[in-house]
Amino acid sequence: MVGIGAGDPDHLTLQAAKAIAAADVFFVVDKGEVKQELVRLRQELIEEHGRPPYRIAEARDPERDRTAPAYAEAVADWRSRRSLACEALIRDELGEGETGAFLVWGDPGVYDSTLAIVEEILGRGQVRFDYEVIPGVSSVSALTARHRTSLTQVGRPVHLTTGRRLAEEGATADDVVVMLDAHCSFAELAGYHIYWGAYLGTPDEILVSGPVAEVADRIRELRAEARARKGWIMDTYLLRRL
Amino acid sequence: MVGIGAGDPDHLTLQAAKAIAAADVFFVVDKGEVKQELVRLRQELIEEHGRPPYRIAEARDPERDRTAPAYAEAVADWRSRRSLACEALIRDELGEGETGAFLVWGDPGVYDSTLAIVEEILGRGQVRFDYEVIPGVSSVSALTARHRTSLTQVGRPVHLTTGRRLAEEGATADDVVVMLDAHCSFAELAGYHIYWGAYLGTPDEILVSGPVAEVADRIRELRAEARARKGWIMDTYLLRRL
Repeated sequence: MVGIGAGDPDHLTLQAAKAIAAADVFFVVDKGEVKQELVRLRQELIEEHGRPPYRIAEARDPERDRTAPAYAEAVADWRSRRSLACEALIRDELGEGETGAFLVWGDPGVYDSTLAIVEEILGRGQVRFDYEVIPGVSSVSALTARHRTSLTQVGRPVHLTTGRRLAEEGATADDVVVMLDAHCSFAELAGYHIYWGAYLGTPDEILVSGPVAEVADRIRELRAEARARKGWIMDTYLLRRL
Repeated sequence: MVGIGAGDPDHLTLQAAKAIAAADVFFVVDKGEVKQELVRLRQELIEEHGRPPYRIAEARDPERDRTAPAYAEAVADWRSRRSLACEALIRDELGEGETGAFLVWGDPGVYDSTLAIVEEILGRGQVRFDYEVIPGVSSVSALTARHRTSLTQVGRPVHLTTGRRLAEEGATADDVVVMLDAHCSFAELAGYHIYWGAYLGTPDEILVSGPVAEVADRIRELRAEARARKGWIMDTYLLRRL
């Protein structure tokens, strides 16, 4: 399981490049049309660092019920179906003694499902393998680097949370990183500065920072426009109390 | 300002390797004898990826008053003196049109002072330069990767905090990452599982995980023994509510 960084091909670590070179099979679970750019970027990393002959084994990502009210359960259900698709890939495409790789955006530990899926597959006991997790530059690190700001302040905590939680609970600390926020849940937090970034590390990167009260509308517009134009968006932000 | 990852030379990103190759001068602020291994590892990265001719400009790190009761103030004072030492390095050693580099362990955004020091230098207005921050694999990513566990759980927050705060406030979430804890402040948190790691990514790496009640003593012993043997320790851990 190889973390490949937040979008810039040069976020790849030497360790990840070596892991790509050592893989016989790359497992790709296709999320459909909308994120074709991400698929292409991953493909380019494989072409650049993979050592032929290698194979690419693809499966179709199961649909997730995004209208379900119980978020965690909907994700768990989707994960289970996804893990069955991945299990079939591993069973059918990975030969004895071979090495397979899942390439994961950002860092595999940060709001990504691949680790849980792999553990679910091993838990079922139908296929057996050992695996290693290769850390990557997370979108959080990419965000703070591009804004040239620190994630942490001296002796102060940082909370990492989701847009859904921010909407429910508000900002729970002076420094809060928010991921997976489709609804600009920061907009009412007038006492905060926001460091926002979308498509981090890619040619489409957008950065905005400023007091929330001053920049919220601009972020909302840029976000809606980019999402409409590209068909998808990945963004994250840091809130810091003014 | 180049994040170089959490200890493994292969944590270096391609972007960081290119930045090292592009540097004319490396600024090194020496922390004295105890962490000579870290200095050597950094030196090896420069030798491996630097493009001669390059220069290494060294300064002595000012002493920090570790007995001061006001932690944030003591750090701010130390930072100021450190920034003066760095400013002198930049003023005296960086020629017009040249590129200098500070190599930073882990990710420059995570409990590191280099960003604040650079901003303090620019704020004084005595030397002028532009700078870029290159993200790195943080010790948090290295920790979770080595334990093959996720930092985040679906839709749940993670708190990143310091040992000092954990001792004062206890665990403030189901998932808490603790850095800079010299006192094993986790020891009383019987309701948690701990994923602990020291010297992550290096040949001396130590990993322990288990319910706090079962492994706290072992971590304390391992930590004290390693610290005595090597003269320094860098460790971090994730607490997850059982």
